Amino acid sequence: MLRTFFEPQGIVIVGARSTPGFGFGMPLTLKEQGYGDRTYLVNPKGGELHGMRVYKSVAEVPDSVDLAVVIVPAQVVPQVLTQIGQRGITNVIIQSAGFSEIGPQGKALQDEAQKAAKKYGLRVIGPNCVGVVNTANRFTTSEVMPEALNPGSLAVIAQSGVFGHNLLDRFNEKGLFISKAVTLGNRMDVNESEMLDYFKRDSATEVIAMYLEGAADGRLLVKTLKSVSQEKPVLVLKSGRTSVGRAATASHTGSLSGEDKVYEGMFAQTGATRARRLTELVEFAQVFSTQPLPNGNRLAIVTGSGSMGALAADAAVAAGLVLPSPSKTVIKKAKEGAPAWMNVSNPLDVGPSQQFPAAFNALMEDPGIDMVLAIIAMPFAVMRYNRSEDHLINQFFGNLDGMKKHKLNKPFLICVVSHNNLVELIKKETEPEIPVFTSPEAATLALAALWRYQRFRQRKE
Amino acid sequence: MLRTFFEPQGIVIVGARSTPGFGFGMPLTLKEQGYGDRTYLVNPKGGELHGMRVYKSVAEVPDSVDLAVVIVPAQVVPQVLTQIGQRGITNVIIQSAGFSEIGPQGKALQDEAQKAAKKYGLRVIGPNCVGVVNTANRFTTSEVMPEALNPGSLAVIAQSGVFGHNLLDRFNEKGLFISKAVTLGNRMDVNESEMLDYFKRDSATEVIAMYLEGAADGRLLVKTLKSVSQEKPVLVLKSGRTSVGRAATASHTGSLSGEDKVYEGMFAQTGATRARRLTELVEFAQVFSTQPLPNGNRLAIVTGSGSMGALAADAAVAAGLVLPSPSKTVIKKAKEGAPAWMNVSNPLDVGPSQQFPAAFNALMEDPGIDMVLAIIAMPFAVMRYNRSEDHLINQFFGNLDGMKKHKLNKPFLICVVSHNNLVELIKKETEPEIPVFTSPEAATLALAALWRYQRFRQRKE
Repeated sequence: MLRTFFEPQGIVIVGARSTPGFGFGMPLTLKEQGYGDRTYLVNPKGGELHGMRVYKSVAEVPDSVDLAVVIVPAQVVPQVLTQIGQRGITNVIIQSAGFSEIGPQGKALQDEAQKAAKKYGLRVIGPNCVGVVNTANRFTTSEVMPEALNPGSLAVIAQSGVFGHNLLDRFNEKGLFISKAVTLGNRMDVNESEMLDYFKRDSATEVIAMYLEGAADGRLLVKTLKSVSQEKPVLVLKSGRTSVGRAATASHTGSLSGEDKVYEGMFAQTGATRARRLTELVEFAQVFSTQPLPNGNRLAIVTGSGSMGALAADAAVAAGLVLPSPSKTVIKKAKEGAPAWMNVSNPLDVGPSQQFPAAFNALMEDPGIDMVLAIIAMPFAVMRYNRSEDHLINQFFGNLDGMKKHKLNKPFLICVVSHNNLVELIKKETEPEIPVFTSPEAATLALAALWRYQRFRQRKE
Repeated sequence: MLRTFFEPQGIVIVGARSTPGFGFGMPLTLKEQGYGDRTYLVNPKGGELHGMRVYKSVAEVPDSVDLAVVIVPAQVVPQVLTQIGQRGITNVIIQSAGFSEIGPQGKALQDEAQKAAKKYGLRVIGPNCVGVVNTANRFTTSEVMPEALNPGSLAVIAQSGVFGHNLLDRFNEKGLFISKAVTLGNRMDVNESEMLDYFKRDSATEVIAMYLEGAADGRLLVKTLKSVSQEKPVLVLKSGRTSVGRAATASHTGSLSGEDKVYEGMFAQTGATRARRLTELVEFAQVFSTQPLPNGNRLAIVTGSGSMGALAADAAVAAGLVLPSPSKTVIKKAKEGAPAWMNVSNPLDVGPSQQFPAAFNALMEDPGIDMVLAIIAMPFAVMRYNRSEDHLINQFFGNLDGMKKHKLNKPFLICVVSHNNLVELIKKETEPEIPVFTSPEAATLALAALWRYQRFRQRKE
């Protein structure tokens, strides 16, 4: 059962040790999170660690255990798996590295380990990974920041520990939290499709973010993505490792591999949302986990800068969104009290007027608009004559906190085009409920991704 | 003479006023920067502002003046230009808005103003702009942060004030400084080609960053870009305003305008470097103004994370870079003291070993490598057992400050994949000399842009 990986009754850590590293940090983390009474340490040397007894072998552990975490040198892993199997433990996370990722010799060792695991019917995550995190019960086989254990609705599937950690670190900065995370490593047994299917059924998970270097089983992945996407958005960052291999010759000057085009088609066909870069995966995760899906592709842009509006509009049109002309009601509301030079079109450039809140609210209430991008443009120098930056924000952009009242009606994002100090100030007011971007193009692409996913859902329903 | 815009002998501000706005802030800024004795204020009301006398008309100003800055309501601009012309002033910056940007009525007014300007042979920047900044003499017609007046080597050409300010704000964050900046507004007279040509000959300028909504004169722009690119890189962010106009109808679902493809070809043919988004323009500016040009397209990636290396390698191959296999020397140096699991290939994944500095230095010294991307990957949680983060950085990545010794040999960038706190810590060590990215793909694209520009230069020489 995959559930045991996230909700074990008893845990044995094979390879606990008193020198810095996973074998030292993980027992401490588990103890700190309240798992001290269900965590058993194993190291042939015996002794004590963090005030916990260290058993000399798996067989010696007295109580019932269903999950083993293995951090021993690669060569010893096959025999450790045998001991684990003999002990009746069902689930194993192999964190040790030195298997297929280092070449043929490692691959042979991994095959041997796989044979041992199969013999005892073990379910295995890894090797070459850092295992799992479950925020609901604060169970983790990896040292993460305590803040990262706050419960959220994002599930993470990563190949490597560094990648998983990096997502957690970046989510943290944005006030986003995860439901569960898993790093799959070399996927000797458990693969991404199984995990997707598990997260589909996991009630704590609403959005799934995945990093993929290649499918363990392509057909299964297509089938799984199709089924999962019906219920929850799957955000994927895929690297084309195959082409990288080919690129590693001085003569190669080509473009991405044909294989990548196959994946491109797969994601489009299955409703998965492909992120084009690491930062985009984080942005999509933020937007999909905070914004409702739009009814259609009609975008309105309200902006304090014509240039920024134009950049966003370009990105929108290229991504298949439309920018309808403002309705009579929007024109009327936006024009009230506006200076003569202000045109009400789309993008709606309010310039340095104080019409931003009126225009924004009118667009949010307009039934002909499916999503709104609000671009706050303010040269930092303007602030130096203002006693209070909060006052300045209020004067030009209204009560940002109050924007949250719209949050379930339709998706909307803020893009702040200014000095980082103002960006941080506005983030404090609005995040995590309203994501703040600093690039008009990136914000637009995130809204377009929401719409494409919604279109997939509507077609299928 | 365009030079007068940046180095005026005497300045008159027509439309100085005692209420907040440009007419209030600019006189104060000029006074603070030491221009008080050469700045004359004009407002029909007369009186005093910031301790300076306010003349009732341009004609009343007693001393020699060669630059007028106009901030009066649009309707009055034509007659003010006549007064300026009659007074013998040669250069004018019109900051007032309400001209062609608001429609046919404003266009008529702009035509009238243009006629008045032509009659007296005035050179005009604007209308609808904030004028210029020159850091060499700290002259500015726009309120900017005092820090933004530190001299640097980047010249900025922008259409709107907000856009120009935003670049200055973002450069500031990265420790980058400008030589000169100009916002062109509606380009009634002075256009981007003239400014490009001026910056080509400006000894303080090494790199030019430009935002363009459309060429004032396409043929002239092609000719100018070709000539300027021979000597200095021109970085361009172009928005397709035409297509935005067409997009502003609910029925439009198309892609970018055909016009945009024409610009795409123009930039490729003339050696201009096109940025795909606002953030990329800032990134390119940072990389072009701090890094030497590479001899070729051979990239080496050293990384603490295989996944991040794969993402960077994908982006590199797609952008036309090659990743050569490591030379024997590199293999030897990187392997010294390395753990058994470490493979030396390209990307060179050092994992959690301490081989990063050895690998990096070997690659920087290898004649078969033209540029290096160094990816620092560190989960933030790792830091909590470390008394000093500096010590941790040193232990894994060596002396970052010492990396600067390589800076003139070949281009290299750092990408930090971690929590924002570590990113900031590393930036403090390395920027502005070594740019720090947080996205492996973005860092790679910046290196590829350097190479493409170098290829253009080599072809022409």
